[in-house]
Amino acid sequence: MPKISNRGDLLPESSIRKLVPYAEKAREQGKKVIQLNIGQPDIKTPPHAIERIRNFNFELIPYGQSYGNDSYRKKLAQYYRNRKIDVEYTDILITTGGSEAISFTFMICFNPGDEIIIPEPFYANYRSFAVGTDVVIKPIASHIEDGFQLPSISELEKVISPKTKGIFICNPNNPTGYLYSREELEQLRELVLKHDLYLISDEVYKEFVYDGFQHHSVMELPDIEDHVIMIDSVSKRFSACGIRIGSVVSRNKHIISSILKLGMARLCPPILGQEVAEAAVDSPPEYMEEVYNEYLRRRNYFINALNEIPGVYSPMPRGAFYSMVRLPVEDSDHFCQWMLEEFEYNGSTVMLAPASGFYSSDDSGKNEVRVAYVLNVEDLKEAVACIREALKVYPHRTPDAEG
Amino acid sequence: MPKISNRGDLLPESSIRKLVPYAEKAREQGKKVIQLNIGQPDIKTPPHAIERIRNFNFELIPYGQSYGNDSYRKKLAQYYRNRKIDVEYTDILITTGGSEAISFTFMICFNPGDEIIIPEPFYANYRSFAVGTDVVIKPIASHIEDGFQLPSISELEKVISPKTKGIFICNPNNPTGYLYSREELEQLRELVLKHDLYLISDEVYKEFVYDGFQHHSVMELPDIEDHVIMIDSVSKRFSACGIRIGSVVSRNKHIISSILKLGMARLCPPILGQEVAEAAVDSPPEYMEEVYNEYLRRRNYFINALNEIPGVYSPMPRGAFYSMVRLPVEDSDHFCQWMLEEFEYNGSTVMLAPASGFYSSDDSGKNEVRVAYVLNVEDLKEAVACIREALKVYPHRTPDAEG
Repeated sequence: MPKISNRGDLLPESSIRKLVPYAEKAREQGKKVIQLNIGQPDIKTPPHAIERIRNFNFELIPYGQSYGNDSYRKKLAQYYRNRKIDVEYTDILITTGGSEAISFTFMICFNPGDEIIIPEPFYANYRSFAVGTDVVIKPIASHIEDGFQLPSISELEKVISPKTKGIFICNPNNPTGYLYSREELEQLRELVLKHDLYLISDEVYKEFVYDGFQHHSVMELPDIEDHVIMIDSVSKRFSACGIRIGSVVSRNKHIISSILKLGMARLCPPILGQEVAEAAVDSPPEYMEEVYNEYLRRRNYFINALNEIPGVYSPMPRGAFYSMVRLPVEDSDHFCQWMLEEFEYNGSTVMLAPASGFYSSDDSGKNEVRVAYVLNVEDLKEAVACIREALKVYPHRTPDAEG
Repeated sequence: MPKISNRGDLLPESSIRKLVPYAEKAREQGKKVIQLNIGQPDIKTPPHAIERIRNFNFELIPYGQSYGNDSYRKKLAQYYRNRKIDVEYTDILITTGGSEAISFTFMICFNPGDEIIIPEPFYANYRSFAVGTDVVIKPIASHIEDGFQLPSISELEKVISPKTKGIFICNPNNPTGYLYSREELEQLRELVLKHDLYLISDEVYKEFVYDGFQHHSVMELPDIEDHVIMIDSVSKRFSACGIRIGSVVSRNKHIISSILKLGMARLCPPILGQEVAEAAVDSPPEYMEEVYNEYLRRRNYFINALNEIPGVYSPMPRGAFYSMVRLPVEDSDHFCQWMLEEFEYNGSTVMLAPASGFYSSDDSGKNEVRVAYVLNVEDLKEAVACIREALKVYPHRTPDAEG
């Protein structure tokens, strides 16, 4: 029997999804499982975008262009320009989700063994994309105590080696909700120019920024066009995760034409999803406003309520719809599994994502979980009650955090 | 400005799609461009599968399971079982097209630098998938003179080195239309067992086999379960290329669970496409029969008509809907571009795929093109007339093939 590849061995199980079998068992036992482990919003997809699909009146679903439909690329370029991101539609390639955008970017920007720096904790699947393309992630720690702010540039510079080829950020951040300031982006710009690195920014949550703060895209940074690549997706913006439509954006023509060669090999992004995405871009401002207000309401309720549970701490996230939460437990992997296997409160339990999958350094975040506040406030209330009661009876609660 | 990766440099331009700008110019000049360069059928998608999308009545398009919808996997397993491929639905992962199935398989089965043997000519995009995953293709020549039959096993064995980890075939073959006999598959089985290799088979055209011949899947081979991986897609079977739904099938649990780790990172295959694919599996036999008969009619007309053009030769393909055609020209790349730029006949011209992209050895197939007989007979008649007239006036016709 032939051996599988090192990549196959090294690929992590998705920490977000690996508890799925326990959740299924819990459901079979009749428990309601409140899912805060995955960024799957319960918000409606824009109705007129679904309508577009219901009106689909072609007899044949053929290949589309490898770079995506021009009509959609043009709308998306206008969407970006309305948000201070001055790009042409030819700077945009439509991809099969943000996932493909990241994998393709890694394949084209980095050789096997090249290193990229990512502030930690980071979205667990980045590790899979890196392993799949033989890129090495060098994490740089950010900490819950200061709200996961970007480590100082001198800290970042210490990690740079001759093999370092890029810095990869997520802004606003999944899993921490951290929002990068304009000053931090300027500092990253200097660093990237000084060391001739790529600056890749996953900005799929850019519409979700709270408390009067403003999102700044890496695409706004001047005179660094050839270094900067933006990753985007409509999954969260329009609550349409299942259509698998993302994009990769860069003013570096060579990057775009090289990624397009990968795009040509996989023929085209999904045609039906593009129909939905293109319609969704024309969503009325009221749709986005309503969605925004709903996430704001959820954040305000949920983070405050969590912080009222003894021993629990979460910074107030400034963006996206996640937070890293510190729990008074020794091992959040065990706690999350225990919640599904052993615990219920009023017939419900909560599915959380253990933080371990979001850290690449061993033992970091052992007492943290990631929560996604993607459910309505009623469900969140039930979740808070569950977590509060669970922590009262969980047998491996840490003594120092009690009381 | 940072350098792009070696992968980015090495990736080929799609030979199938690189003539697109010339075709666009030809159209702007008012020419009708008959497209035989790409396997984009003009056949209708099963109407009830389109109807499924038109009846889509959910308010939200969420993530699906990373392995694909169970309901679809179960139907697909039954579909395979009806065709002598005895698999469970858990042996199947749904992928974003056959393309993703191949990329994922390469990532999981092979380390960077590992070699795979592929009979040449081969589907041009295999090269891109190999470059993207740092796998090295060792081609083994098959020849138009004997209808591109599999080289003898002793020839194949000569190419095996300590770095060889797999043999990859396409059956029935794109671009040659070659169909592997049961005996050839048995020989491959022996070879694969002897050298402990993977045997990967792209069988997306398995429904299109003519002249009373029968398709044999590698999945039918006994006692080789852990070595065998089948690549599949509904794109061509149901004329639904744009939905991007494929699958990877293996009884090797370790392979499937490892590919699933990549699948989890990219979250899920397209949800809307899966709806169409699942409905399409239930297509009435009349649909498949009609489609089959249509391709048979096209093949019979087109290949015979091509062979009547002086200097032109095509074997009669036994499967799929492609053929490699030898033309009396020095350089088919030049000829194909010239057809679009310089030639027209009754207001039309033909877009062909130069064979160079299907060969990895230099200068092989310089006087061959790949044709896809995916258009109706009327269009094919016009195409034949164009090619015949073009070869009369093409300035770089080879002297030896004249008359």
